[in-house]
Amino acid sequence: MAEWKNLDTLEAYKVLMESDHRVDLREVLAGDAGAERVKNYSVPMACGMTYNYASKQVDEEVLGMLADLAKESDLEGKFKELYNGAMINTGEKRLVLHHLTRGQLGDDVIADGTDKRAFYTGEQAKIAEFAAKVHAGEICNADGEKFTTVVQIGIGGSDLGPRAMYIALENWARANGKLLMDAKFISNVDPDDAVSVLETIDVAHSLFILVSKSGTTLETLTNEAFVKNALVSRGLDPSNHMLAVTSETSPLASNSGYLAAFFMDDYIGGRYSSTSAVGGAVLSLAFGADVFDAFLKGAAESDKLAAQADPMANAAMLDALIGLYERNMLGYESTAVLPYAQALARFPAHLQQADMESNGKSVNRFGEPVDYVTGPVIFGEPGTNGQHSFYQLLHQGKSIVPLQFIAFRENQSGIDVDIQGSTSQKKLEANVAAQIVAFACGKADDNLNKNFEGDRPSSIIVGDKLTPETLGALLAHFENKIMFQGFLWNLNSFDQEGVQLGKVLAHETEGALAEYSKLLDI
Amino acid sequence: MAEWKNLDTLEAYKVLMESDHRVDLREVLAGDAGAERVKNYSVPMACGMTYNYASKQVDEEVLGMLADLAKESDLEGKFKELYNGAMINTGEKRLVLHHLTRGQLGDDVIADGTDKRAFYTGEQAKIAEFAAKVHAGEICNADGEKFTTVVQIGIGGSDLGPRAMYIALENWARANGKLLMDAKFISNVDPDDAVSVLETIDVAHSLFILVSKSGTTLETLTNEAFVKNALVSRGLDPSNHMLAVTSETSPLASNSGYLAAFFMDDYIGGRYSSTSAVGGAVLSLAFGADVFDAFLKGAAESDKLAAQADPMANAAMLDALIGLYERNMLGYESTAVLPYAQALARFPAHLQQADMESNGKSVNRFGEPVDYVTGPVIFGEPGTNGQHSFYQLLHQGKSIVPLQFIAFRENQSGIDVDIQGSTSQKKLEANVAAQIVAFACGKADDNLNKNFEGDRPSSIIVGDKLTPETLGALLAHFENKIMFQGFLWNLNSFDQEGVQLGKVLAHETEGALAEYSKLLDI
Repeated sequence: MAEWKNLDTLEAYKVLMESDHRVDLREVLAGDAGAERVKNYSVPMACGMTYNYASKQVDEEVLGMLADLAKESDLEGKFKELYNGAMINTGEKRLVLHHLTRGQLGDDVIADGTDKRAFYTGEQAKIAEFAAKVHAGEICNADGEKFTTVVQIGIGGSDLGPRAMYIALENWARANGKLLMDAKFISNVDPDDAVSVLETIDVAHSLFILVSKSGTTLETLTNEAFVKNALVSRGLDPSNHMLAVTSETSPLASNSGYLAAFFMDDYIGGRYSSTSAVGGAVLSLAFGADVFDAFLKGAAESDKLAAQADPMANAAMLDALIGLYERNMLGYESTAVLPYAQALARFPAHLQQADMESNGKSVNRFGEPVDYVTGPVIFGEPGTNGQHSFYQLLHQGKSIVPLQFIAFRENQSGIDVDIQGSTSQKKLEANVAAQIVAFACGKADDNLNKNFEGDRPSSIIVGDKLTPETLGALLAHFENKIMFQGFLWNLNSFDQEGVQLGKVLAHETEGALAEYSKLLDI
Repeated sequence: MAEWKNLDTLEAYKVLMESDHRVDLREVLAGDAGAERVKNYSVPMACGMTYNYASKQVDEEVLGMLADLAKESDLEGKFKELYNGAMINTGEKRLVLHHLTRGQLGDDVIADGTDKRAFYTGEQAKIAEFAAKVHAGEICNADGEKFTTVVQIGIGGSDLGPRAMYIALENWARANGKLLMDAKFISNVDPDDAVSVLETIDVAHSLFILVSKSGTTLETLTNEAFVKNALVSRGLDPSNHMLAVTSETSPLASNSGYLAAFFMDDYIGGRYSSTSAVGGAVLSLAFGADVFDAFLKGAAESDKLAAQADPMANAAMLDALIGLYERNMLGYESTAVLPYAQALARFPAHLQQADMESNGKSVNRFGEPVDYVTGPVIFGEPGTNGQHSFYQLLHQGKSIVPLQFIAFRENQSGIDVDIQGSTSQKKLEANVAAQIVAFACGKADDNLNKNFEGDRPSSIIVGDKLTPETLGALLAHFENKIMFQGFLWNLNSFDQEGVQLGKVLAHETEGALAEYSKLLDI
């Protein structure tokens, strides 16, 4: 059994905190030694991708201390307990099984009298069969016409992850004859969200997926009412157009109001549900079950690498350790995720949830306050767009923000133009390479307004192309990174009490709340 | 003439920094006094909106010190110099005239032999005339058919602001018969960005606006090549489909390759250009020039209020002062912008640019390093979506993140459903009210994992409805807030050397760059 201890009780942490050894990127990246460093500071990831950390403020000495920390914290052992079905989510007393949706890493996990791997693959098979019938026109609307659009109704993890994954693969699918249905998303309780989707789709040819684990999420049920109104007002029967993704015990589970119900369970947290039925239904309908399957394979390959004990062979663990070093030792408060791929436009928003909801906590897994900082603020936008915007602060602001770049060698559509001697894709890549070096090395100028101090750390993940496989691998990399950081900080990364407040407030606040309600004319 | 001095040379700043007076929101918001505070801590904004700061960590004493700071820093006088045409952009030696695009606040501004107000309104009139002809079908495609879609090609300020404004008004326009053309945006040099837009629009019925002040922005010219290819491959003549928004001296200005050219100048920074021809062309084509005009009127009304000396009558100035207090006195590093309106989905991304590109700097307006922190990291997503995601960290994380809520009393479409005794819109508003109180007051629980400490500060801007007028007012509020903060920090908020790096790197870094290029297969 792994020992769960606060970070500041570990010897390796004390050694790290007492060390005054610091790496200056301007020195280590200069000249031939710098080139050598870029060549060597890489760890292989799944699906042929690479995690390169040459522009992080680490060297052999720091890495050695971080490896000691990984060992003392027993990151390998903790992950092993997790995938073998220990009750890792201490707050809610639940297993944490999202890895099992995409592969069998360890022992069979039997819970509630069920083999959970069989349960997840069973739901995938049901979804695949259903999607194939929809694509073949066997499941169709009342006029016998094919459905062309699928609309996911969900919020939080039922929205951000699946939406980010859909957007990530839409171009790829169009270029590869795999865009079988358009997907849209309704999430916000703001009525204008549902209205804007419903007024711009062909409702008569749309399938709606209601996603709610409990079947009682207020936003989602409100939006379901919107959708049902829209169907009824067009003379359509909602039960021909709606399906549910929910738990087996929810009121949506065996309900004649739905064409079908696909199941998840309490062991899949919302923000980790893209590889479960929550992502599976919408992605299989949009792209086909084979594409969803390839996505799962990529994630499974990442998970396998994450099970390695040695951080130098485990990119997710190394990424986690370096992030912890930046947060706890170097004191950086936020991290920017900067994909040089427009298809990853919403990937930072998904990671913002995945990371901040998992590790934005102040008590450890036993409910005791911790005396060290935990998860950072996460934000980001795709490059090169960000270069023309908030990179100003990243380069010249008073605070240092560590950067996580992502880039690919080829674009998704295969379509490109050649301008001034290179393609758009190569310009995109040249930009990210130059930015990394500029952030790290800076640029001296006598005019201090044009001076760039440098020593601003970044890493880059590089892949050949953003495909279902590499997307799955990328997603799992970050999920596992966040998990390892939670282990290091001794947090329960799998509950979210902080998103469950706001309904029951204390009595003393009634007056203030009433005045705010008056201001808002509620 | 205003005196430009570093923040830490001001007496009022020293008084603030030496004061150990702190406000605890849990105390000041309790009971009847708390209700009274919510009622009173409001400042009127333009277009009937309100800035309420009852849940900020300030009281009469702090506000008094901040008012002294505003006075000593001569914020009123500095804004007056700016709108009267002083050379406020010291780095690039330029005037700062975006206020003049929407009204005449002070003296006539004559620059380069031109009355600049007349220049901006003249371009607006040219755009209005052009848009009316497009809408009437007088300007049409080669087959004599009306254009139905307008595509903006631009990056940074030519993209984020206009895109955020378009998305903000799309629902409103649809509900009010004002959605005259669909608008799309191409920005990234990633070829898949242009491809995904071009493959999902009706190119033969599309107008393309090329936006580049210099006419030489690489991303934008590359994307123009994409668009021209798409037109030519369909047998269409690009010069019938393209217009330019550029400066009078750019290669795009008098070019027979474009249907028309509308002009901006060097006195409008990209991130402040939504009210210039950069926003004017696309918004007037999408919604009609009358809608763009209403948007300008809202902005002008905000600007007028921002010219007041007293921060208690000047919401932008007060917002700026409280933000500075949080950043420099309380040490908070980032700020979240949280609009409870799905239509403002991209408004935080625009503010991220506006704020971080303006004030993410380490040297003052004279090019000397400053010894105090400056602009914060800005991020945000619409509520209630964020509540199911990163609010975890905001409520229970180790770092305190000040929050800027925005909400409206009515939705844009006027369509709604009634569920469990209230409409979606009222649920949306009830959520934001409860969140503000929860953040400020917390909620005690013996289980520390469910305990909310509170004392987490927020403000809220409330309006009746998001319309062209209130959107303009909101935009100008934040522009002016950022301007006042720049004055306080003694920065030049109107240049952006940090986004102009990345092309010429120092010689010592060539080896590292070459290795990164190899990794990326460039």
